[in-house]
Amino acid sequence: MTVSVLRTAEGAWWAALDEHRAVPVETPATTTAELLDDVVTVHMALAEARAGTSTTQPRRIAELSLVSPVTSPCRVIAQMTNYVSHVRDSGMNPETVPLTFFRKTSGSISGPFDEIVKPAHVRFLDHEIELGLVVGRPLDVGTTVTADNWRDHIAGLVITNDVSARDVQLPKTQFYEAKSYPTFTPVGPALVLLDAGELDRLSEIGLVLKVNGEIRQDSDLTDMIYSPLRALQELSRFQALAPGDLILTGTPGGTALKAPPRPVEIIGALLPPAMKWKAFFNSQSKNDKYLQDGDVLELSIRTPDGAIDLGTQQTKVRYA
Amino acid sequence: MTVSVLRTAEGAWWAALDEHRAVPVETPATTTAELLDDVVTVHMALAEARAGTSTTQPRRIAELSLVSPVTSPCRVIAQMTNYVSHVRDSGMNPETVPLTFFRKTSGSISGPFDEIVKPAHVRFLDHEIELGLVVGRPLDVGTTVTADNWRDHIAGLVITNDVSARDVQLPKTQFYEAKSYPTFTPVGPALVLLDAGELDRLSEIGLVLKVNGEIRQDSDLTDMIYSPLRALQELSRFQALAPGDLILTGTPGGTALKAPPRPVEIIGALLPPAMKWKAFFNSQSKNDKYLQDGDVLELSIRTPDGAIDLGTQQTKVRYA
Repeated sequence: MTVSVLRTAEGAWWAALDEHRAVPVETPATTTAELLDDVVTVHMALAEARAGTSTTQPRRIAELSLVSPVTSPCRVIAQMTNYVSHVRDSGMNPETVPLTFFRKTSGSISGPFDEIVKPAHVRFLDHEIELGLVVGRPLDVGTTVTADNWRDHIAGLVITNDVSARDVQLPKTQFYEAKSYPTFTPVGPALVLLDAGELDRLSEIGLVLKVNGEIRQDSDLTDMIYSPLRALQELSRFQALAPGDLILTGTPGGTALKAPPRPVEIIGALLPPAMKWKAFFNSQSKNDKYLQDGDVLELSIRTPDGAIDLGTQQTKVRYA
Repeated sequence: MTVSVLRTAEGAWWAALDEHRAVPVETPATTTAELLDDVVTVHMALAEARAGTSTTQPRRIAELSLVSPVTSPCRVIAQMTNYVSHVRDSGMNPETVPLTFFRKTSGSISGPFDEIVKPAHVRFLDHEIELGLVVGRPLDVGTTVTADNWRDHIAGLVITNDVSARDVQLPKTQFYEAKSYPTFTPVGPALVLLDAGELDRLSEIGLVLKVNGEIRQDSDLTDMIYSPLRALQELSRFQALAPGDLILTGTPGGTALKAPPRPVEIIGALLPPAMKWKAFFNSQSKNDKYLQDGDVLELSIRTPDGAIDLGTQQTKVRYA
């Protein structure tokens, strides 16, 4: 059975979710890596609460100010174009799109109910719901990752939003800056710890993102191209991982950004890049799907039977 | 006057360069950040050696096994296309190319006389000599970086080689993996600590890279597009920096990779990406400038008068 770990703003306080109560976890851990190292204390706190032998009182979730259960600094690694539906949105071919990673700053991590702040210089703000994998065991470069051992490296799952400044991302071509401004990686509410059997059910997981109540992204992991196994195998060629690191596994279709139709794209390729982007963003200014000041985003990730349920993240956009 | 700091494989031993002697620095520092925090000990060791009052014996440089003076883990941040000559090589327009960063893993850092190891899956290995800036003071996101204070954040300079697997880099479009394999960031030999006056002489610095004695890259910083001041200003929007972090400032023209002529590029844009890259790399297999097994690279960075001299890095390519 999964265990959902929460973290609150009140003195880096950790809790385990028991129905709708937050059971305090008395651990000296201040980072996610330390918490994962002390996971036995999480299980003990839950067992005591259920047996009625806790020395501390459970709290109502609604009373708590939840922050990201993934602490920074950590590595934040993200997969590019990893769902068939999003690859099609992006005007690419799902059959040939390569397995590709980029980095985000961990300073971009924010809480599951925080504001998403658009910097003044950004024009086109977009959302990307993504399943986040939280690393639980070190992975050295050169490690052989197999279908048998990949689960050992993943401690749990979180909801993430890979917020993107499209007008920065596309002309710069490297995604690092456009996805790294503060508050551009809301994480949580829960870090859901899974056992190996539950990790085998990943393909049943669905992702839904709503803006002001309207569904914009709605897909499941059968749409995913490169599995977490393949992702870890590729990372093991060049990127060491440590407990508490966060891997974003790509977003399904439904973002505000859509690639222009192929004939327009071909004409664009004939133009110098600066002119191409000017024309493209002129056309995008008529696209009302980009996030507006005050928009409310609701993200949820779960299996239909609720056996794996990462909760609901609710954030509000604020224009700086 | 500059001070050159070396680090040796023998027990993380630090030294200061005095003419051709390495003066041991008795510091508990094990990381570059700690060494920068204890820079007074470096100056004292040099002063004592010159006054003949040292209690330890200087060593001949040739006796030492020098390793990277920048220790990992640290952030390794690199600028894309930042020299007019390289932007032209890449088929882009220096007038409109944006200021762009990407990340490399710090696990890719290797020593100034180590081998560069080509992974078996890589076909086209290329070199990029780059001036490396070593951060000396924290920079928080939101800090205002000005022409007056940017020097405070830079402790010194190092020679770096941004080794690149072109056949991985171009189809994936994100540069992170292709430039992050182990040994893909040789650093050193010296970390050269500069004062503010010396940092004003950056534009006089020249960079030369030779392969088997033949000059391939030969330029100076008057060819640079975005200055370190501009780089720090842009980074302050999204990336916190800490002492010991490393910023690679881009490479001048002369890499093995050259963009195809414009008409060929336009035809390429009409093809699906997978076909375009197949055709491109077929043509590249006739390019004999890519690094071969056993090639020896010699990189040097200095001002013509030698007032700033980062030494010479010599590495050898090995095909795994």
